[in-house]
Amino acid sequence: MTPFVYQNMVKILFGQGQIAQIAKEIPKGSRVLLAYGGGSIKTNGVYAQVTQALSKADHFFVEFAGIEPNPKFETLMRAVELSRSEKIDFILAVGGGSVADGCKLIAAAIPFEGDAWTILTKRAPIARAVPLGVVLTLPATGSEMNAYAVISRSSTGEKLAFGSPHVMPAFAVLDPETTFTLPARQIGNGIVDAFVHVLEQYLTFPAQAALQDRMAESVLSTLIDIAPSAMAEPAAYDARANLMWSATMALNGLIAVGVPQDWSTHLIGHELTALYGIDHARTLAGVWPGLIDVQRTAKREKLLQFAERVWAIKEGAESQRIDRAIACTCAFFNSVGVPAGLRSYDLAADTPKIVAQRLSDRGSLPLGERNDIDRNAVERILSLAMTV
Amino acid sequence: MTPFVYQNMVKILFGQGQIAQIAKEIPKGSRVLLAYGGGSIKTNGVYAQVTQALSKADHFFVEFAGIEPNPKFETLMRAVELSRSEKIDFILAVGGGSVADGCKLIAAAIPFEGDAWTILTKRAPIARAVPLGVVLTLPATGSEMNAYAVISRSSTGEKLAFGSPHVMPAFAVLDPETTFTLPARQIGNGIVDAFVHVLEQYLTFPAQAALQDRMAESVLSTLIDIAPSAMAEPAAYDARANLMWSATMALNGLIAVGVPQDWSTHLIGHELTALYGIDHARTLAGVWPGLIDVQRTAKREKLLQFAERVWAIKEGAESQRIDRAIACTCAFFNSVGVPAGLRSYDLAADTPKIVAQRLSDRGSLPLGERNDIDRNAVERILSLAMTV
Repeated sequence: MTPFVYQNMVKILFGQGQIAQIAKEIPKGSRVLLAYGGGSIKTNGVYAQVTQALSKADHFFVEFAGIEPNPKFETLMRAVELSRSEKIDFILAVGGGSVADGCKLIAAAIPFEGDAWTILTKRAPIARAVPLGVVLTLPATGSEMNAYAVISRSSTGEKLAFGSPHVMPAFAVLDPETTFTLPARQIGNGIVDAFVHVLEQYLTFPAQAALQDRMAESVLSTLIDIAPSAMAEPAAYDARANLMWSATMALNGLIAVGVPQDWSTHLIGHELTALYGIDHARTLAGVWPGLIDVQRTAKREKLLQFAERVWAIKEGAESQRIDRAIACTCAFFNSVGVPAGLRSYDLAADTPKIVAQRLSDRGSLPLGERNDIDRNAVERILSLAMTV
Repeated sequence: MTPFVYQNMVKILFGQGQIAQIAKEIPKGSRVLLAYGGGSIKTNGVYAQVTQALSKADHFFVEFAGIEPNPKFETLMRAVELSRSEKIDFILAVGGGSVADGCKLIAAAIPFEGDAWTILTKRAPIARAVPLGVVLTLPATGSEMNAYAVISRSSTGEKLAFGSPHVMPAFAVLDPETTFTLPARQIGNGIVDAFVHVLEQYLTFPAQAALQDRMAESVLSTLIDIAPSAMAEPAAYDARANLMWSATMALNGLIAVGVPQDWSTHLIGHELTALYGIDHARTLAGVWPGLIDVQRTAKREKLLQFAERVWAIKEGAESQRIDRAIACTCAFFNSVGVPAGLRSYDLAADTPKIVAQRLSDRGSLPLGERNDIDRNAVERILSLAMTV
C-alpha cells in the first residue's frame, strides 16, 4: 500500500424525499443557477420538487437548460456568461454525470480570468470556484462525490478531463426514485460505467491493499447482484438504491487510495465518443475486451483474484480461469444491453491508428498502471476490440 | 435501505513519513496543545517526529501528558484549564483512541460554558470546539475519523459517550510504522475492537443494503486475513497498514449508512470497564458470546450470511451453520489473545444484576437494533457470557 492522502467533504443526502432538504443546504440569500439537461426532469417530477424547495426557502434562482450528454464547452460558456451577469454565487446541478461535470466547469470558469479551455488543455490552476450542489438523477459517473469532470468541445472534437478540490460538490442528493423513469438504456450504461470505474482501480497489479481490493470487489459483486432487478423493474427501490450508492462509491476516491490505477479504457473510450458520439459507457464496454486481451499477462494476478472472488471461478488452469472471468464480464455487459466489443458499431477501419495518433499528439501516452500502453498497444487494443 | 445523511470531512494522511506533514495541516500561527498518553511516544520516535515537525513550522506548542486508557474526565479538565490559560487554539492528539477521545472532550470543553460533564450526561449541545488533529499510534477505535468519544469519570465510576460534528478531527495521520513497537496485547485488542465495531453495524437484520453489507464483510475478512501476521511480526508493514486502515474504516460511518445498528455489546462492555477496569476490547470479546446466544434468533438471517460470506460456512443445517460461525468468531478472538467470554475474569456473581441496574438507572435500556434488550436480557447476556 503506497502512502496516500484522502479527503472527501461531500455531504450525501440519500433516499426518497431528500430533495426537499436542498433548501437548507444552500446558504441563505444565495443567487442560484439551476442548471439541467434536456428537460426530462420536467416530466418526472424532479424539477417540481427542486423549484418548490428553492421557492420555499426564498432562494433567488435563474435557470439554465440544455447541458447535453458529454457536456459541450460552448454550451457551458453560455452558462458562465449568464451566471456572471446574474451574479450567481451557488450552482445547483440537477441531472446525471454530464450535468454535474458541466456545472463543475461552470463553477470554476465563473471566477476564472483568461480562456477557461486552458483548464482542460493546460491544467491551468483553479484558485477558487463558485460552490455547487448536485441533485443526481442518473447513477453512473460518480461525479456527485468527486472533484473531476470530463468536458467535450465541438469545434475541436476533443473530450478532456480536469479536476480540482474547489469543484467538489458541497452536497449531493441521491434519491433513487428519481431514476424510476430512466430508459433501460441509461440504467445499463450506468451499471457498466460504475463497473468499469472499479475495474480501472482494481484490475491492475497486487499492491498489498487488502481492504481496498475487497471493497472494490464489493462494488462489483453488488452491481452484478442488483443488475437484473435494476434493469427489469423501474420502480424497484432497493435495486435502484443499491445501484445509486454503488455508482457513487465506485468513484469517490475510496477504493483508489494506496493502489495503482489504469484508466486506459476510459482514455481510449473518450476518443471514440469524441469521434463517433458513442455513449460513454458503450465505449468502455467496447474497448475493454481489447484492453484485457493485450494486458492479460500484465494483469494476471489480479485477473485470477477477480475470477475467484467476483465470479467464483476456482477450478481449472490459470489461463482457463482468466478466459472465463473475461467471458463472464463481457456477458455481464451484454446482459444489461451494453455490447462488449466494438464490432456492432460502424467504425472506420483506420480508427485504431487515428485514436493512437490523437492520444500521442496530446501527450497522453503511455497509458496504464505500468505506463506500458504505447501507440502500438493502443492500436492493438482497438483492433482486437473491433473483432469482438 | 433507510434514508441517510453522510459527511466525513476528516483528511487522512496515510503511510510512512506522513507525520512530517502535520506542520502544513495546522494553521500558521496556531497555539497548539500537544496532548498524549503515558509517554510511549517518547521511546518509539513518534514524539521526536511530531515535535520536529511542529518546531520546523515554528508552531508554538504546550505539552499535556498523561491521558490514560479510558480517559478520565478529571484528567481532561486539567488539560482544559491549561489550554484556557495558554490560549490554545489547536489540539494535536498523539496516541490511540483514548488520547483522541480525550482530546475531543478537551476541544469541546475549552469554549463550553458551564459543567462540561453535562456534555456526557445530558447531551448538552456543543456550539463549537477548538479544531483538532490526530497522530494515530494504535489502530483500534476509529476515533481518528469520526465525531464520537467515550469518557470515564473516576468519582462516579461512569463511562459515557458523546458525539458532535464539531469534534471531528481536521486531519488524522496514520503511519503504520508507529505501531511497530506496540505490545501484542494492544494489537490483539485493536483487532477485536475493530471487528466488533463492524459486527455492531452488520450483524443485525437485513435492510436491503447490499453494498454496506459487502463492505462490512470486507473489513471483517481483511482483519481475519491479516491478524496472524499483524500479531506475529511487529514490523510487517503491510499487515499493520491493512489493520490500521481497516480499523479506521470500521467506524468512520460508511458501513453504518442506511442500516440498523446494535451497539449493545459496547454499552454492556462499558459498564464492565467502569466497574472492573477491564480493557475495552476485552469487554467486547467477553460480552459477545452472551449477546449472540440471546440474540441468535433475532439475528438469524444475518448470522447465516455472516457464516457464508465471512467464514465460508455453506454446508449443514441452519442452526449448525450459526453455531460454527459463532465458534469461528470466538476462536478468532482467542487467536489474537483476547478471551471470548468472561469466565477468565474474576467477576462478582451479581455482576449481571448490577450492570442491568446501572444501564436501567441511566435510561439506556432497551438496547439493540430492535430495542428488545431489556434489563432481563442484559442479565441473561452477562450470565451466559460468564459461563464461556
